[in-house]
Amino acid sequence: MNVVILTGGVGGAKLALGLCHAMPAADVTAIVNTGDDFTHLGLAISPDIDTLLYTLAGKANPAQGWGRADESWSFMEALRSLGGEDWFALGDGDLALHVLRTQRLRQGEALSAIIRDFATAWRISARILPMSDDPVATRVLTPEGELDFQHYFVKRKCAPAVQAIRFAGAQDARAAPGVVEALRDEHCRAILIAPSNPFLSVDPILAVPSIRQALLETRVPVVAVSPIIAGEAVKGPTAKIMRELGLEVSADTVSRHYGGLLDGMLIDARDPPTALDLPYARADTLMKTLEDRIRVARAALDLADSLRG
Amino acid sequence: MNVVILTGGVGGAKLALGLCHAMPAADVTAIVNTGDDFTHLGLAISPDIDTLLYTLAGKANPAQGWGRADESWSFMEALRSLGGEDWFALGDGDLALHVLRTQRLRQGEALSAIIRDFATAWRISARILPMSDDPVATRVLTPEGELDFQHYFVKRKCAPAVQAIRFAGAQDARAAPGVVEALRDEHCRAILIAPSNPFLSVDPILAVPSIRQALLETRVPVVAVSPIIAGEAVKGPTAKIMRELGLEVSADTVSRHYGGLLDGMLIDARDPPTALDLPYARADTLMKTLEDRIRVARAALDLADSLRG
Repeated sequence: MNVVILTGGVGGAKLALGLCHAMPAADVTAIVNTGDDFTHLGLAISPDIDTLLYTLAGKANPAQGWGRADESWSFMEALRSLGGEDWFALGDGDLALHVLRTQRLRQGEALSAIIRDFATAWRISARILPMSDDPVATRVLTPEGELDFQHYFVKRKCAPAVQAIRFAGAQDARAAPGVVEALRDEHCRAILIAPSNPFLSVDPILAVPSIRQALLETRVPVVAVSPIIAGEAVKGPTAKIMRELGLEVSADTVSRHYGGLLDGMLIDARDPPTALDLPYARADTLMKTLEDRIRVARAALDLADSLRG
Repeated sequence: MNVVILTGGVGGAKLALGLCHAMPAADVTAIVNTGDDFTHLGLAISPDIDTLLYTLAGKANPAQGWGRADESWSFMEALRSLGGEDWFALGDGDLALHVLRTQRLRQGEALSAIIRDFATAWRISARILPMSDDPVATRVLTPEGELDFQHYFVKRKCAPAVQAIRFAGAQDARAAPGVVEALRDEHCRAILIAPSNPFLSVDPILAVPSIRQALLETRVPVVAVSPIIAGEAVKGPTAKIMRELGLEVSADTVSRHYGGLLDGMLIDARDPPTALDLPYARADTLMKTLEDRIRVARAALDLADSLRG
């Protein structure tokens, strides 16, 4: 039976990897945030998709979680010597994805078709689907004005306080081929929402109208894995943004944020007692090792199975 | 006093470097072949210009003559793993030139303006001018059909016999800003034609109508350095092409090829007795060391000075 996971960057990729070991990888469909995608130095860059490609292909840098293992940096050095913009790090090997993607997008190919070929070349069994082949751009409203996502995230290192977030283009974006079909498959075992940043990584996916509609209508159990562990996020600005938006940093907040889309939630064993008004289970959700990732994937699937009744 | 050099790839870059040491580099203007330029993987590549940039910036790979010293190759490895075309080698650091050039060309900037900025960033004093900002494409007619230059030169390693060569776009190409002015400057000391391949590297420059016209009309001494040493070319397919075109492999053939454009020719000391019907001088024209390059540059300048009378 298939399992669908909605995922953003590093944290989501970890759970997706666990899922590919907890069940047949060929039955896993990952629907990936493309709101972070942007054009830099003329190259089309898809950070979350690439993180998932590297993770599932066993090529990810284990220390930083993004980018390639054993990366070299001659390009950046030469770029700096030429006075090029160097605030976004592009590894030498990483450039191959960007150059090929850019070339094929310019030739009119769809992102989903390009990513399918990349995944095939790297013998990834899971299906990796961009949420949409249409451009959607996450934009962050801050006291410094509205910033492009990468400007906020990388250049400004998430320092400006978040006042609001919008997903330019989402209203008109169609889900990529296969996405709605995967969400509407009645034989699907579970739809998981990865412990990615709800505001920056999952919301862009949910902002695509046909995806939200399919999630609202599905009878397949939808289970989110909370990104909060003992009142903090493991990585990234999730907790910081919650505070900036005046929200309590808790699984409860995440649950309310996803609202009627959820059937259940996996929260961390360390979390304080919760007033969650939906079925939940507890587990150690910290994913340091592959075994951790498999354990969290299994716990999420178990919760989903119990909800199917 | 200024000196102009018309140049192609590796051999020409060596002489240009010698020239920059034999006289004030800021007074050297190199007019560079762009007939080899092509788009590969969506990147705009200018092989001869880049060879000159690397050579004059002291960054060239001394062993192969093209590309960067201490280059790394992670990009090509990743490209191959994705099934990308790998017949043209793109080094990791080398990609910085191609990515920045491509981005700026797409934004509508002229190649000459981009190259000027690259040269400035790398503190190159000599002026490097592409022959034209308009596209000119060298195409080689062979028994396998008409091949793009890089297809012939790199992919097929110059194996197919050359039947004819043409420069698509040259008739309509305007010389880049500064080119005709440099050639028409009456105070110029000499115009040198580098020992580059006459058919593949120099002819495209001469095929730009305003450049040919300026060379025909100038009263500045025009001196070619013969690419033939003892009946062979030092490197590349010059001698092979001469044979394929039914020509004798000699300085005489080179001289006849340039015809009325030349005022004098520097030929190698090892060449057999010649029937050249224009003023010439002999020197050891093999350029292995920097001292060799300076010596050849001085010999060419001396010949030009003697012709000025």
